[in-house]
Amino acid sequence: MSHARTGVVQTPHGDLATPFFMPIATRGVVKTLSSFDIERLGSPILLSNTYHLWLRPGLEVLNTFGGLHRFMDWSGAILTDSGGFQVFSLEGLRKLTEDGVEFQSHIDGAHLTLTPELCMEIQRTIGSDICMVLDVCTKLPARDAELEEALELTTRWAQRSKEAFEKTREGSVNPGAKLFGIVQGGTTIALRKRSAQELVDIGFDGYAIGGLSVGEPFEEACAVLDALHDILPKDKPRYFMGGAQPHEIVAYVQRGIDMFDCVLPTRNARHGQLYRFVHNDLTKPDFYEQIQITNEKWKCSDEKILPLSKGELEGVGAELSRYSLGYLRHLFTVNETLAQRLATMNNVRFYLELMEKIRQAITAGRL
Amino acid sequence: MSHARTGVVQTPHGDLATPFFMPIATRGVVKTLSSFDIERLGSPILLSNTYHLWLRPGLEVLNTFGGLHRFMDWSGAILTDSGGFQVFSLEGLRKLTEDGVEFQSHIDGAHLTLTPELCMEIQRTIGSDICMVLDVCTKLPARDAELEEALELTTRWAQRSKEAFEKTREGSVNPGAKLFGIVQGGTTIALRKRSAQELVDIGFDGYAIGGLSVGEPFEEACAVLDALHDILPKDKPRYFMGGAQPHEIVAYVQRGIDMFDCVLPTRNARHGQLYRFVHNDLTKPDFYEQIQITNEKWKCSDEKILPLSKGELEGVGAELSRYSLGYLRHLFTVNETLAQRLATMNNVRFYLELMEKIRQAITAGRL
Repeated sequence: MSHARTGVVQTPHGDLATPFFMPIATRGVVKTLSSFDIERLGSPILLSNTYHLWLRPGLEVLNTFGGLHRFMDWSGAILTDSGGFQVFSLEGLRKLTEDGVEFQSHIDGAHLTLTPELCMEIQRTIGSDICMVLDVCTKLPARDAELEEALELTTRWAQRSKEAFEKTREGSVNPGAKLFGIVQGGTTIALRKRSAQELVDIGFDGYAIGGLSVGEPFEEACAVLDALHDILPKDKPRYFMGGAQPHEIVAYVQRGIDMFDCVLPTRNARHGQLYRFVHNDLTKPDFYEQIQITNEKWKCSDEKILPLSKGELEGVGAELSRYSLGYLRHLFTVNETLAQRLATMNNVRFYLELMEKIRQAITAGRL
Repeated sequence: MSHARTGVVQTPHGDLATPFFMPIATRGVVKTLSSFDIERLGSPILLSNTYHLWLRPGLEVLNTFGGLHRFMDWSGAILTDSGGFQVFSLEGLRKLTEDGVEFQSHIDGAHLTLTPELCMEIQRTIGSDICMVLDVCTKLPARDAELEEALELTTRWAQRSKEAFEKTREGSVNPGAKLFGIVQGGTTIALRKRSAQELVDIGFDGYAIGGLSVGEPFEEACAVLDALHDILPKDKPRYFMGGAQPHEIVAYVQRGIDMFDCVLPTRNARHGQLYRFVHNDLTKPDFYEQIQITNEKWKCSDEKILPLSKGELEGVGAELSRYSLGYLRHLFTVNETLAQRLATMNNVRFYLELMEKIRQAITAGRL
């Protein structure tokens, strides 16, 4: 039985039709693209990162500009990851305490401490529309005792985050921002349920499922989502954090997920991998393909990156429908960054179109 | 006394108002920009390179697509350097004979021979609007005997080039193409005059001055141009090959030059150096400045890359007028290729606007 659903997430920078995908702008830029390009691509929201923006450009710059929207001239919505995942990735360079996490900057080695409260302050300075609590990310596989300890701390930090979030609302650049909690607990169903229930008891504007898409089997991620379905409030958005291939996104949508971010379309683009639709039946996992444009077989291909007749689309679509796969291959062969840009446009456009197709399919009762 | 002049160079892909500047698309792409971007920038012509296109994508691909215009979807004009300069730069890897120049590919070490005839064939395959003869480029400083030998061979090759060019016209993708000769002779005035006269005797559609901008003092380049002024036919375009800063372009225009290419705007952009106008009196060499955007001083600058009110311009101008110098600095700091792209747009736009100002100043009798 499908739990796929459509809806709307309201933000101070626009209403977002769900399910939606957020292009990743970790450092205040979707690699190779300007905010003008994102507008032309038609994404109503971007995802950025608290940890990375804190280090560069830093709070002084963000304060001067009055937040990230103005800094990058983006009038759509912004969700910021808390940066917990990035800090916990600094193995050997970080130390976890009840108060927060002490670590060394990956840029200059400076000793820093990120606490749930500071994490809220930074996101208030960024002016995010959707802020994420600081959570404790445990590397999988992990023992249950370790996962349990992490989720208990995640809950306590979530409580502190909510209090700090409320206290920093007044006078902030984006007082209408929302705050999401993050469910942890690895792939242990009982722990996942407990984590979700504790967050629901605190009460958030939305709920993210973190700590998945870190190498565990696809079936285990699905099992976690199935287990959480009846615990998370029906009227709040559900956000799957982490990478997902197009057919996995469909599977997660069928398990009630409303929001996605994914580094695959942009990262794969930079390595010359292009997503393309094969057919329109999203329930069959072969509805898309990935081609490796650097392969010899595309050398003389005059097929367009996006096969549309000229003038059919404005903006990015029109641009992609001008250039052949043969030309794009040439650009990759000579290490030209325009290659990465055109491929990124293609893949982000693909993911956005996928979400549009998903919303249409749900509405039509086909998903 | 100024010899500055305006005029028109007619090509199968449009009439070009002189003096003009050609953005450099060595490998069939202006680094970081698509042909769509070049259209938005408003350049009516691009410069590409015979040697580089011969190696990649190669003649098979260019033949399949019916030339470079279709390959990169560019409807404006294209001038191609012969590639002589590139081949002669491969010191130790190349050998000069009467027939041509034998060398090893910089990509895979393959042994190749470029002759004046092959050079014409390749440019016919590319479908250039303005083809350049294969010339012999001598590294400066050089003894007069060496320069003389090189210019004599350049003349013989120019004769062979013209014959090959005529023979390959019929059935080529761009039969209305023009052929330019290239004056050599180092900074020795007598040799320069002889080279020019010999080329004029053969007869070309235009005349380039090669072998300058290779480290010689600015005054010596000016002296060469002064010496050539009365030898080159008044009714044919004159093309200064090689880099020139904005104030040097003005000086060369005043010596009768009609066409320029220059790697500085694009290369400097990629290193974070932005050209900006300071005032409008082009006769004073301080009419422009170059700023180093990576400097700390721009960290919090909310000044726009291009200070225009929104909506004043379409396309690239509108895009550049959205982003601040502070944001651009941030993009360079995090090694984001969008930084190089925005800076490239700014600098190419600057050079194109410079040429527009020059044409207006000439028409108004101010240059």
